[in-house]
Amino acid sequence: MHADLLPASGSSTHISVGDVVTEAGVTIPDVQLKLFAYYDATSADPNYADFSEGPEPGLDVQDRPVLLIEHALTGDGNLADWWPEMVGPHKPLDTTRYLILCANVLGGCSGSTGPGSTHPDGKAWGSRFPGISIRDMVTAEKALLDTLGITHVQAVIGASMGGARTLEWTLMHPDYVGAALAIAVSARASAWQIGLQSSQIRFVEADPHWHGGDYYETGESPAEGMGQARRIAHLTYRGELEMDERFGVDPQRGEDPYGPYRGSKQRFAVEGYLDRHADKLKVRFDAGSYVTLTDALNRHDVGRGRGGMNAALARSEVPTMVAGVDTDILYPWHQQEHLSRNLGDFIGLSQITSPTGHDGFLIEGRQMGQILQKFLLKAEHIGRDARG
Amino acid sequence: MHADLLPASGSSTHISVGDVVTEAGVTIPDVQLKLFAYYDATSADPNYADFSEGPEPGLDVQDRPVLLIEHALTGDGNLADWWPEMVGPHKPLDTTRYLILCANVLGGCSGSTGPGSTHPDGKAWGSRFPGISIRDMVTAEKALLDTLGITHVQAVIGASMGGARTLEWTLMHPDYVGAALAIAVSARASAWQIGLQSSQIRFVEADPHWHGGDYYETGESPAEGMGQARRIAHLTYRGELEMDERFGVDPQRGEDPYGPYRGSKQRFAVEGYLDRHADKLKVRFDAGSYVTLTDALNRHDVGRGRGGMNAALARSEVPTMVAGVDTDILYPWHQQEHLSRNLGDFIGLSQITSPTGHDGFLIEGRQMGQILQKFLLKAEHIGRDARG
Repeated sequence: MHADLLPASGSSTHISVGDVVTEAGVTIPDVQLKLFAYYDATSADPNYADFSEGPEPGLDVQDRPVLLIEHALTGDGNLADWWPEMVGPHKPLDTTRYLILCANVLGGCSGSTGPGSTHPDGKAWGSRFPGISIRDMVTAEKALLDTLGITHVQAVIGASMGGARTLEWTLMHPDYVGAALAIAVSARASAWQIGLQSSQIRFVEADPHWHGGDYYETGESPAEGMGQARRIAHLTYRGELEMDERFGVDPQRGEDPYGPYRGSKQRFAVEGYLDRHADKLKVRFDAGSYVTLTDALNRHDVGRGRGGMNAALARSEVPTMVAGVDTDILYPWHQQEHLSRNLGDFIGLSQITSPTGHDGFLIEGRQMGQILQKFLLKAEHIGRDARG
Repeated sequence: MHADLLPASGSSTHISVGDVVTEAGVTIPDVQLKLFAYYDATSADPNYADFSEGPEPGLDVQDRPVLLIEHALTGDGNLADWWPEMVGPHKPLDTTRYLILCANVLGGCSGSTGPGSTHPDGKAWGSRFPGISIRDMVTAEKALLDTLGITHVQAVIGASMGGARTLEWTLMHPDYVGAALAIAVSARASAWQIGLQSSQIRFVEADPHWHGGDYYETGESPAEGMGQARRIAHLTYRGELEMDERFGVDPQRGEDPYGPYRGSKQRFAVEGYLDRHADKLKVRFDAGSYVTLTDALNRHDVGRGRGGMNAALARSEVPTMVAGVDTDILYPWHQQEHLSRNLGDFIGLSQITSPTGHDGFLIEGRQMGQILQKFLLKAEHIGRDARG
């Protein structure tokens, strides 16, 4: 391993991974991925023995098992930011025992090459950025790990779009991956997901500030379309029971949605909540990336070119655990059951019970932490067996 | 009853019901509702005895029990058009035994007064049309029945937005209604529904052809925004299992959503399906009515001004049956269970089992027919008991 290429623990760096040729045949030259790495030295915490079956703490970084964490659609490589309860010293993703890597995806907007990046001609890629698949993202990540000189990862872990990449890792590079945990995901996009996701793409495209995807040099951005997409997306990420408990039919403070005339400034509380989420995403996320990654989710299908979905899963050789959320409407529980029945080397199914829906893997820290610990012990045992 | 005011059986007429004052205090002058009526003479069908516990067939219209059917959001008074398996001679809504009435709602666009109707000043109401509630629709319908000289209805039956009106009928006019069947509806809008519905309103409002609701004289109409709203709405009306069985990840015929570059003309089959539904609605439904009725669904709350939702249901004096669809995500089954636990005079709960989701009440004709027959026998017995 070229440990000298790693950023300091908890920080990030850009890694050049060379050209990436997409599944559909387009070359993206000189791809960069922004990588975060976590590998703290052992601390003197006296409560440290609670994970004693795991890998030895405090090893030099090149001797540590590698965990590759795959972020979701609007996540990024900054794992400690979006999964703070899971990662750190003595947390489930224990930074004193593992070398933990998390990279922003190909097509993203958090430091990796995407539609908003600079094309070799000096302008933004914009509409010239190709359609990419989940597999193309994995292709770029494999090139990243090769660049780092990493020859094996103990486990790949991801939820939602990260779960889709996790499944593709097991099918594209089975010898490279010791074990996998796919969370809140399916073997392929469902028609219902494609319907929702393609609608979101259209909201962005319908915004006149989109300029066909080439808005970067115009000084405008399709914030309104992004907001519309995010409101709908967020409604599929959350459970209706949880939202109803929080907001019910309450009006937004100081507004009256029951007045004599309907008005866009007379909102229900849930509208104010969705507006806040929409406003946050408009600022922090590039519309071109949102469209590109959403399209990649539409293209997700482990069966493409592999004789169909179940044939592909059956040939999977990587021990894989599956988890999901009971109230998820975007990736309903039956999809996780489907994976569990068809994966070639299935090692367990865990359910997060929560009213929150799909986002349960981000919200239910205690349950998610238990699932990660259970999985990581399995992965460690599998790793020991493999090392003989 | 003023039978002379009724249209011929199977046809429609406009009825003037006078001014309607909305719950929020706005007067809509000279409201008209478009009414369909069904009251066939007895036919000579020899298979006719299968409903022998029901009301006597072939009575003169003024002697028949009245059934009031309440249509859903984009339905209308033309009951035989949207519920063809349910209504007709010897069908569950037996046109030889009942006088069956179905009127387009206040705010609608199928012949009743709504935003697209002519204001007293000669231009369209447009943005001047007030916000209306489910209760305001019932107010107009009660004025319609009063105009017809009808003093009692044997049953009110409705699904979805029609179910919301059905519940309000039982609370606003308990002495007038013999029994009620509320299908695929809840006691009030949920936060999740409001989130989805308010998003749909915004799609229409964001279309530059909306012109603040006053597009009627511009020669333009917000068809694009309506299409966006319809695509999302349709995804909440259908079950993901059924959609996935039909479309999966298939491409639209002749298009390639897996190509090197994403393109709006390279669609999945499910996108083509949603586009067809969007295109149909754009043509047949007025955007102003869509916004007004969607807003009315947001305002649906049987508890408003009645001491809360469960207190209102507990005081209900009309024998009420509840039905729903097991896979409905828009009005989930737990909402029908909630009604069944809280209604003051609850007479039964029936479940349509179907992969189709909310639209099951339109699609699963055999199951829906059985529920109607079961309910109508209950209503007939209740009516006989009341008549002594």
